[in-house]
Amino acid sequence: MSVTDDLLANNARYAETFTGPLPLPPAKHVAVVACMDARINVYGVLGLAEGEAHVIRNAGGVVTEDEIRSLAISQRLLGTQEIILIHHTDCGMLTFTDQDFRDSIHAETGIRPAWSAEAFPDLDTDVRQSIARIKSSPFIPRTDSVRGFVFDVATGKLHEVK
Amino acid sequence: MSVTDDLLANNARYAETFTGPLPLPPAKHVAVVACMDARINVYGVLGLAEGEAHVIRNAGGVVTEDEIRSLAISQRLLGTQEIILIHHTDCGMLTFTDQDFRDSIHAETGIRPAWSAEAFPDLDTDVRQSIARIKSSPFIPRTDSVRGFVFDVATGKLHEVK
Repeated sequence: MSVTDDLLANNARYAETFTGPLPLPPAKHVAVVACMDARINVYGVLGLAEGEAHVIRNAGGVVTEDEIRSLAISQRLLGTQEIILIHHTDCGMLTFTDQDFRDSIHAETGIRPAWSAEAFPDLDTDVRQSIARIKSSPFIPRTDSVRGFVFDVATGKLHEVK
Repeated sequence: MSVTDDLLANNARYAETFTGPLPLPPAKHVAVVACMDARINVYGVLGLAEGEAHVIRNAGGVVTEDEIRSLAISQRLLGTQEIILIHHTDCGMLTFTDQDFRDSIHAETGIRPAWSAEAFPDLDTDVRQSIARIKSSPFIPRTDSVRGFVFDVATGKLHEVK
């Protein structure tokens, strides 16, 4: 049995008490952009129920072209209005540099990625960078409520970055 | 009060019973790539607890350069070995075309996105496309367990795409 098989057994139990379908557009008109970190259960952290918010996640919770794509679809086609960004303490992205990561891939595979790993040395600075990327995009129509937070993996609390 | 403020009040309650910190590497050595759809609570659907799996999400659950970046970091730096892809029924990505989406942005803003919206007309075909993109990447070292599923928003069940 792989871990994937174990998780499929969990899904069968989840479906036993599942009631659906809910509507497609998020009921709370919110999109969340969070780090992929395993310790951030976004539904738990924000007290969200199924159907309430779009959840976009990647390594670091950074904003690249693909997050602009997702946010553009979220706002333009599905009516979300507020954006919440979540980085977190003890993030893996603080532990290496773009240069080292790309060098190691180059050394191992002979191919250098054309993309940046988006590693960053300071959490608050990178949250502000992600907000700035959203606000500067011509494709995101509603940017009056874009707020960024750091999730503390020790306490479970969100700290707002001003 | 904005919705964001409401969710911050939820976070204060979440933190009251939170116990941490857990280790950084995902305990189950799994990375999940899922659609951002509000109805997919990934932790619930797969019975995951905090700390067990990386969760990567975007519009459609598709694999673009940014998901390759996240998966490369997940496997190379944080030791994940299996990948689970989750698309779902009633997906917004089935309801429009790239051409229409980019035309509408062009008409409204005067700027045409350089990226594709990654809309798709068939769920199973797009799951296979996402698997193919992962398996063809030189930057993802472990691709022997990459499995794709469609989540049924009516029943809560995952259906594997073969």
